Amino acid sequence: MLSTEPSTPLVVLDLLGIFVFAIAGALVAVRKNLDVFGVLVLAGITGLGGGVLRDVLIGRTPPAALVDWRYLAVPLVAGMVAFVYHPALGKVEPSINVLDAFGLGLFCVTGAQKALDAGLGPAPAALLGMVTGIGGGVMRDVLAGRVPAVFRGDLYAIPALAGAIVVVVGSYLDSVPFAVVAFTGGGLCIVWRLLAIWRHWQAPVPTGPASV
Amino acid sequence: MLSTEPSTPLVVLDLLGIFVFAIAGALVAVRKNLDVFGVLVLAGITGLGGGVLRDVLIGRTPPAALVDWRYLAVPLVAGMVAFVYHPALGKVEPSINVLDAFGLGLFCVTGAQKALDAGLGPAPAALLGMVTGIGGGVMRDVLAGRVPAVFRGDLYAIPALAGAIVVVVGSYLDSVPFAVVAFTGGGLCIVWRLLAIWRHWQAPVPTGPASV
Amino acid sequence: MLSTEPSTPLVVLDLLGIFVFAIAGALVAVRKNLDVFGVLVLAGITGLGGGVLRDVLIGRTPPAALVDWRYLAVPLVAGMVAFVYHPALGKVEPSINVLDAFGLGLFCVTGAQKALDAGLGPAPAALLGMVTGIGGGVMRDVLAGRVPAVFRGDLYAIPALAGAIVVVVGSYLDSVPFAVVAFTGGGLCIVWRLLAIWRHWQAPVPTGPASV
Repeated sequence: MLSTEPSTPLVVLDLLGIFVFAIAGALVAVRKNLDVFGVLVLAGITGLGGGVLRDVLIGRTPPAALVDWRYLAVPLVAGMVAFVYHPALGKVEPSINVLDAFGLGLFCVTGAQKALDAGLGPAPAALLGMVTGIGGGVMRDVLAGRVPAVFRGDLYAIPALAGAIVVVVGSYLDSVPFAVVAFTGGGLCIVWRLLAIWRHWQAPVPTGPASV
Repeated sequence: MLSTEPSTPLVVLDLLGIFVFAIAGALVAVRKNLDVFGVLVLAGITGLGGGVLRDVLIGRTPPAALVDWRYLAVPLVAGMVAFVYHPALGKVEPSINVLDAFGLGLFCVTGAQKALDAGLGPAPAALLGMVTGIGGGVMRDVLAGRVPAVFRGDLYAIPALAGAIVVVVGSYLDSVPFAVVAFTGGGLCIVWRLLAIWRHWQAPVPTGPASV
Repeated sequence: MLSTEPSTPLVVLDLLGIFVFAIAGALVAVRKNLDVFGVLVLAGITGLGGGVLRDVLIGRTPPAALVDWRYLAVPLVAGMVAFVYHPALGKVEPSINVLDAFGLGLFCVTGAQKALDAGLGPAPAALLGMVTGIGGGVMRDVLAGRVPAVFRGDLYAIPALAGAIVVVVGSYLDSVPFAVVAFTGGGLCIVWRLLAIWRHWQAPVPTGPASV
């Protein structure tokens, strides 16, 4: 989503990230046999949901996604592309997952920064950075009738939280420029997420029998 | 939900639409074997959820449904009626679906207009008009543990979006009175929805095998 | 959640209530085989979700849970405790349910009072008191992929609503001190909930065949 003073390159990056997230969301909808409307909604929710949730929680309404029409147009296009070309897209899904990691790295950084800009403390800002990155996917999974993938071992949220924490810590280091902090945080998230995909890292599950 | 300057006939229409939506929501709860509290909550969520979501997104808090007690009383009554008389109501469900189409036409118009009043641009206003119409049903289905019906072929959201688009376009035509625009948009939504019920029109689903 | 002028004892009570709710939420996550992140999120959602929803609906953003870091720390600790010690905690779940009733009684009282403080009328304030008590558990169940327990016969919401109604009614009785009202409302909720657990009281379900 847009930074407080969005520069053109950042907006382009932001829209690219939303596009990738939206493609991933639309593919979930296709696999669940949803209709064209469901595909478009899941594309939009996955691409924009995390940022909208963050904006509502920090009281920044209407959310950025409802102020700039390009934020609605991008998931619409992504959803239509996925609706038509899903067999081809499904075959290159490993590549989509790699691009998705870049989107995650971007959103955890911009999300944490916006929460700091809104005056939130360090712990909530880091949390909202992570929420910006993963919130859309969680909503997508709930709407598609499945338990969110981020709760089932997929190492996705913890890299996003780590990236957001870097941004929060960096904001207290006056001597370090924001660009350095942003690249460090985003890079940490992206590298960790890519390693998790590559090495099949999983988040730990509880051990021992669950009482009923 | 209430227009910016609610007139008595509009409030009555609004409450009637909420009543019909709430009945439909309560019947879903009955079929899911929920208890009386679940029936009342699903009645309330179906009747009011779309408008509450819209109000939260445009920053109009507390939402209209939490300011005027009649907006809470109507779904409460509808839920109790459905709790007791659901066998009879289930038999006249085709008639309920027809009334539901009128509620949809009303809510997409008033929702889009309220979004415009809040200063939103044309694309977000049309989107929020649709959200006002379908949002409550989506929340109901998620709470009832099923994938939202509007994502599974039911031609429901697209007529609502069409009606909202008419309102948005009409707001740029200074020479056309609001009543004409509202009747055109609402009428388009209602007729399209009724034709979809009558002719069993379905939204298209993706073709070709979904990759796994 | 915090009252308008939180005193230290009230904050401590509030954090204790959140802790108990979070433990209960984490145990649901363990039973659903979620990973450590899912356990922590469900702990946090169960402990804080009702208050966050109430704050968003009354326009009090950012919500109290995102302003005071202790509100994030408590469910984090509770989630980690449950992640490690869930077999032992599962065995004492009847005791957790008793403590949970005390949390419910606390939250319905503070939630209704905060809604009144925000200027809401009596019916919405009572509703939001109940929402503060049950909202987190509903969100937890939706995220865990099950129909909310409060809709399936569990007598949980109605005691919370009763407690909130006492607070609302008491706010109109100038001669009765708030402490008396709060203890009466919270006590009613707690006793009713404990009796429901002890005597296996269930909320009524619709009778007669549900039409399909």
